Amino acid sequence: MSLPELERLADEIRDVLCHLVSARSAHFASNLGVVELAIALHQTFDFLHDRLIWDTGHQIYPHKLLTGRYDDFPSIRTKGGLMGYPNPVESDYDLFCTGHAGSSVATALGLASGDDLARRDENRWSVAVIGDGAFPSGVVHEAINNAKQLGRRLMVVLNDNEMSICPRVGGMADYLDRLRMNRGYIGLKDEIARMLSSVPVLGDPVERFLVQVKEAAKAGLSGGMMFEELGMRYFGPIDGHNIALLRKYLRMARQLDGPILLHVVTEKGHGFRPAAEDPVLFHAPPQFSRRDDEIVEMKQSSSRSYTHVARDAIGAAMRRDDRVTVMTAAMCQGNKLEPIREEFPQRFFDTGICEAHTVAFAAGHAKVGLKPIVDIYSTFLQRSFDHVFQEVALQDLPVTFMMDRSGLSGPDGPTHHGVFDVGYLRLFPNMVVMSPGDEHDLVEMLDFALEHDSPCGVRYPKAKAVRVARTDKQERAPIELGTSEVLRWGRDGTIVAYGPLLGECLAAAALLDKEGLDFGVVNARFVKPLDTDTMLRALRDTPLVVTVEEAALAGGFGSAVLEAANTAGVDTSHLRRLGIPDIYVEHGEREELLADLGLDAAGIAKACREGVHAEELAS
Amino acid sequence: MSLPELERLADEIRDVLCHLVSARSAHFASNLGVVELAIALHQTFDFLHDRLIWDTGHQIYPHKLLTGRYDDFPSIRTKGGLMGYPNPVESDYDLFCTGHAGSSVATALGLASGDDLARRDENRWSVAVIGDGAFPSGVVHEAINNAKQLGRRLMVVLNDNEMSICPRVGGMADYLDRLRMNRGYIGLKDEIARMLSSVPVLGDPVERFLVQVKEAAKAGLSGGMMFEELGMRYFGPIDGHNIALLRKYLRMARQLDGPILLHVVTEKGHGFRPAAEDPVLFHAPPQFSRRDDEIVEMKQSSSRSYTHVARDAIGAAMRRDDRVTVMTAAMCQGNKLEPIREEFPQRFFDTGICEAHTVAFAAGHAKVGLKPIVDIYSTFLQRSFDHVFQEVALQDLPVTFMMDRSGLSGPDGPTHHGVFDVGYLRLFPNMVVMSPGDEHDLVEMLDFALEHDSPCGVRYPKAKAVRVARTDKQERAPIELGTSEVLRWGRDGTIVAYGPLLGECLAAAALLDKEGLDFGVVNARFVKPLDTDTMLRALRDTPLVVTVEEAALAGGFGSAVLEAANTAGVDTSHLRRLGIPDIYVEHGEREELLADLGLDAAGIAKACREGVHAEELAS
Repeated sequence: MSLPELERLADEIRDVLCHLVSARSAHFASNLGVVELAIALHQTFDFLHDRLIWDTGHQIYPHKLLTGRYDDFPSIRTKGGLMGYPNPVESDYDLFCTGHAGSSVATALGLASGDDLARRDENRWSVAVIGDGAFPSGVVHEAINNAKQLGRRLMVVLNDNEMSICPRVGGMADYLDRLRMNRGYIGLKDEIARMLSSVPVLGDPVERFLVQVKEAAKAGLSGGMMFEELGMRYFGPIDGHNIALLRKYLRMARQLDGPILLHVVTEKGHGFRPAAEDPVLFHAPPQFSRRDDEIVEMKQSSSRSYTHVARDAIGAAMRRDDRVTVMTAAMCQGNKLEPIREEFPQRFFDTGICEAHTVAFAAGHAKVGLKPIVDIYSTFLQRSFDHVFQEVALQDLPVTFMMDRSGLSGPDGPTHHGVFDVGYLRLFPNMVVMSPGDEHDLVEMLDFALEHDSPCGVRYPKAKAVRVARTDKQERAPIELGTSEVLRWGRDGTIVAYGPLLGECLAAAALLDKEGLDFGVVNARFVKPLDTDTMLRALRDTPLVVTVEEAALAGGFGSAVLEAANTAGVDTSHLRRLGIPDIYVEHGEREELLADLGLDAAGIAKACREGVHAEELAS
Repeated sequence: MSLPELERLADEIRDVLCHLVSARSAHFASNLGVVELAIALHQTFDFLHDRLIWDTGHQIYPHKLLTGRYDDFPSIRTKGGLMGYPNPVESDYDLFCTGHAGSSVATALGLASGDDLARRDENRWSVAVIGDGAFPSGVVHEAINNAKQLGRRLMVVLNDNEMSICPRVGGMADYLDRLRMNRGYIGLKDEIARMLSSVPVLGDPVERFLVQVKEAAKAGLSGGMMFEELGMRYFGPIDGHNIALLRKYLRMARQLDGPILLHVVTEKGHGFRPAAEDPVLFHAPPQFSRRDDEIVEMKQSSSRSYTHVARDAIGAAMRRDDRVTVMTAAMCQGNKLEPIREEFPQRFFDTGICEAHTVAFAAGHAKVGLKPIVDIYSTFLQRSFDHVFQEVALQDLPVTFMMDRSGLSGPDGPTHHGVFDVGYLRLFPNMVVMSPGDEHDLVEMLDFALEHDSPCGVRYPKAKAVRVARTDKQERAPIELGTSEVLRWGRDGTIVAYGPLLGECLAAAALLDKEGLDFGVVNARFVKPLDTDTMLRALRDTPLVVTVEEAALAGGFGSAVLEAANTAGVDTSHLRRLGIPDIYVEHGEREELLADLGLDAAGIAKACREGVHAEELAS
C-alpha cells in the first residue's frame, strides 16, 4: 500500500474505534494512539514469522483490525466475542494473552533467545511494544538487564504517550520527558559527536582520561544514554503518528543487531479531539454519542459501585486519622481515587505500575506507626505476592489491602479476574482475610482493618454496591474478628455467603421459600480467621450447608470450611461448595458469567434444591 | 573510638566470623566483606533513631555483633539461637526480617516517607545496604523510580563486591564495572566539571544547546549518571574497607538531601585469603579448620541431596534433547548447576536475581517449542507468582518448575522455608503439581514434565536423597499423570505421603507394624491433578487415612483430598492431615523442625495410633 493509502487506513481504523465506543465501554484513547504504530509494524515485519507482543494488551484493537478480525470486531468485549486483549485462540498473530503490565520485554527476549537456539537460520525478530506507563515496572528492568547478551534480534518499542492510565510518576518518567525535549537536536548532536570522534588521543593516563571525556560527552549527547549503558541501542524519540518515519526507523533498526530500544512518541487519544484532551476519562470511557469531533452525550453511570464505597470509606478514615495513608499502583482512576489524591496530596501515593514496590513501601509506613492502605486490584496484587509474604505478613505489620475487582471482573476477562486472592492470602500466618456481605460491611471492614494490629485483606467485586436488608428485629452485627453474621437459621439448610454474593444468596433463599424450603443465610465475612463455631453449628444443626464464593474453589472459602470441620472431626458430607471451578473464566458481563457458573440466585437455589433432594435420598 | 581502635574491632569481628564457620556452615564471605561498612554505619548513625535495612540479610553478622549480640553469637543458625538474618524479635536494631533480595530500597523509602509524615521534626535517615547481586532485582528499580519525590532522607549504600552468590550477570553489572574503573579519576573529573561550569552561556537556541552539551559532559563525567538521571545523587565508588573514608562519605552524604546512592566497593571474603580467592565456595562454606590464613581441612559432605539428583536429571535431559533449556535466578551454586553451565553454555541461563523475568523469559522459550526448566528455590519462586499465572499457566505453556528447598529449608528459617508452593500453584488451572516420593521419582518426574504439554511444578526439599525400597514382588510404578503409587494397603489405615516424607511414612508404618497395627502407605506424587480414585478408595476402604506433607496445611495436599472427597460425597471424618500449621516455622535443622511438628516417623506413627484409638472410640 502507498503511504496515502496507509493514512486512509489509519483514518478508517479510528472510525471503527469511535464507532465501537459509542456503542459500548471499551479501551479507547490508548488504541487511538497506536494506530500508525500498528500499521507501520505490520508493514515492516511479518508477524507470522517475526514475534510481536503488545504489553498490557488493551491497545490491541488496531492490531486485531489489521490481522483478520475486522468482521468480528463489533463483538469485542462481549461474551463469546473477541477478547479485549491479545488472545492466541483468536489469531496466530497473538502470541500471549496479556493483561498485566510489563512482561512483554521478558517474553519477547525469551522468544528471541528461543528462536536463536531453535531456528538459528531464520532471522526472526521479536518486538515488544510497551507503554511508558508499564515501562517502570520492575520486570521490564530485569528483562533489559538481561537483554544485552541474548537480545540479538530484540526490539523494544517504547510507546511514550506521557501517560499511564493516570498521569505517570517517577524518575523514569522525568527522564523520558527530558529525552523527548531533545527531539529538535538530533541533527546537531550528530555533528558534535562526529567532531568529538576526530579529537586525537594521547598517551596514557592522559589518553585514557580524554577517551573518557569523549565517551562521556558523546553518551551525554546521544539521548537514551541510560539504555545504552544497560546494553540497548537507543533510537528516537520519533513521531509515532508519522507512518513514513516509523517505517524508516523500524526498517533501519531491523538491519542492525539488537537489542534495540525505539522511542516513539504518541498522543493518547490521537485523532479524536475529546479523547486527546482528556485521555484519563477516555481511557475506557462510558458509552457516548458524538458528532465528528464533538461529544453530544455521554452516558453517566448513576449506580454506586463498591469501588465508590471503598473510596469514600478511605476518605472518611483519612479525615478522621492522619496516620492513614493510601497507596495505589497507577489504579488511581480505576479505583476512583482522584478526590483522595486532591484532598490528601501528602498522604496519597501513586507509585506507578510498581505493585511490588508499593507493598514493600507500605510496610515501611506501617513500621513507623502509620496505617497504610494498599488499594490495588486483586489480580494486580498478585505481582506483590512475595512482598505481601515477606514485608507484611511475616513481619505482622498492619497493612490494609483493599482488593478491588476481586472475583469476576467482567469484560476484561481471565487476566483481570481476581479469583485467586482467597487461596493465596489465606496461606500466610498473621493475615486476616475478609469479604463484605454488602456495602455497609465494606465500610466497617476498612475501619476494622485500620484498628487491627495485623495485616488485613478486604476483597470486593467490580459491581454495583448493594445494601442487604436485615429483618426488622435484627440489627446489623458489627464486624468482629473471625465472626460471621447469621442473618437467620433455616430448617432445610444453610447458605453461607463469603462476600457480596450474599445478596444473591438471600434472593436464592427467597426463591426456595416460595417452594416451601426454609434456608438460613450466613454472612461469613471472614475466611481467615474463620468463624469455626458458626460453620460447625451450621454443619451440625442443619441438613445441608452450601458455601458460596466468587473465588477459585481450589483452596477457597469452602476448603477453609472443610479444613476446619475436618480438624474438629465434624462431618461434611452434606456440605456443597459453589465457586469458580478449575478453569480460566472467559470475558463477559459479570452477571452473565455468574449465571453460567451457577452463582446467581437461580443457580444457588438450584444447588440447594438438589442438595435437599440428595440428602433425602441418602437418608 | 579512635580509628586504630575501630580497625582492631574489625579484626576482632573477622576472628569471630572465622571461628564460627570453623564450627558450623554459615554465611561467610559476604559477612567478611561488610565488616568495615557495618562499623562505619554504626559510627555515623544511631540506628535506634535512624533506620537501617540490610538487603537479603545474610550479611547481617557484623551488625549483630555490633548491636549487643556478641555473647549469643555462637548460637547463630541453631534452633532457638540467633537467626542468620535480621530479626526484629532479637533486637530493635533489626527492623525487618529479610531474606529475599531487593526489597530494602522500597522498605527504606517507606520508612523515610513515613518518618517524614509522622515525625517531621526528627530528621531521621533511612539507610538501605544492598549488594550488587540484589541490585538488578526489579523491585529495586521500582523503588529508585519512586525515590526522587519521597526520599529526602533516603540513603542507598550499594555494596558492590562484583558478585551475586555466583558471578553476576547483565547490563547493570557491566555498568557497575565501568563505574568502578573510574575510581582513579575522581579528582580530575571535579576539575573538568568546574571548568565546564565556567563556560559562558549564549542566547537561545544555541544557549540551550550549549547548556545541554555542558550538562551532558558533566553528567558523563560524574560517574553514576544513570542514577542521577533517575533522581538519585550518586557518590563513589569508594573503598569499602577504609573505615575513615567510609565515615567521611557517610557523614558528608547525611549533610545533604536525599535520595543518595553511595557506591561502595568491597571484596567478598575480605581479610581471609581463602574466602577472598574463592568467594563462591566461601559464600556458605562447609565446616573447616584453619591455621591463620590457611585451610587445614574442609569437611566434604558425602551425602547426595535431591539438589544433586535434580541437577543430574537436568543434565541427562539436556544431553538427550537439545530443546531442553534451563534457567535460574542466581541460584547456580545453590542448585549445584555449575557443571550444567559448563557443559551447556548456550542452553543455560542465569538471569541474576530476577525471578519475575526468569519465568516470563522461560515462557518465551516454551512458546517457540523449547522445553525450559526453571530451577529456582520454592520460596524465591514466590517473586514470580504473577508470571507463573499469566505468562505460563494461563497460556498453558510447558514450562517445568523445579522447586528446590520446598518444605523446611533448615537453618535459614522462615524467609527461606518453601511451604506455600502447594497452596499457590494448585490454584492455577492447567498446572500439574508433583512431589517425588524418593529420588527415583524425582528423576522420572522431570522426564514426565518435559514430555507433558502443560506447565509442571516439581517440589523437593533441601535434604539427603533417599531411595525408597519397594517389596520384592513390587516394581516401582512409573510416573503417570494424576496417578499415585500404592506401596501397600493396610488393615488399620492408610498413610498418604505427598513428597519425600514418604520415607518417614514407611518408617512410621514399620513402627506401627511392631505394635500390631497394619498401615498401608501411598506415594501420592500428584496434588494436581489429584489421584481421586486412590484417595477415595483409601477413604472408603480403610478406617483411617493420614495425609502427610511438608507444606502449609491451609490449601495444601490434605485440603485437596478434602475437596475431592467432598465433591464425590465421600466421608472424611476419619481423615487426619499432617503438615505445617498456621505459623511461621523458625530456623533449625530440618530434622529438628520436622520432629517438632510431628512430621518425622515417630510423629506420624503417633498420629496414626491416636487416630486408630479415636476411631475405635467413635465406633
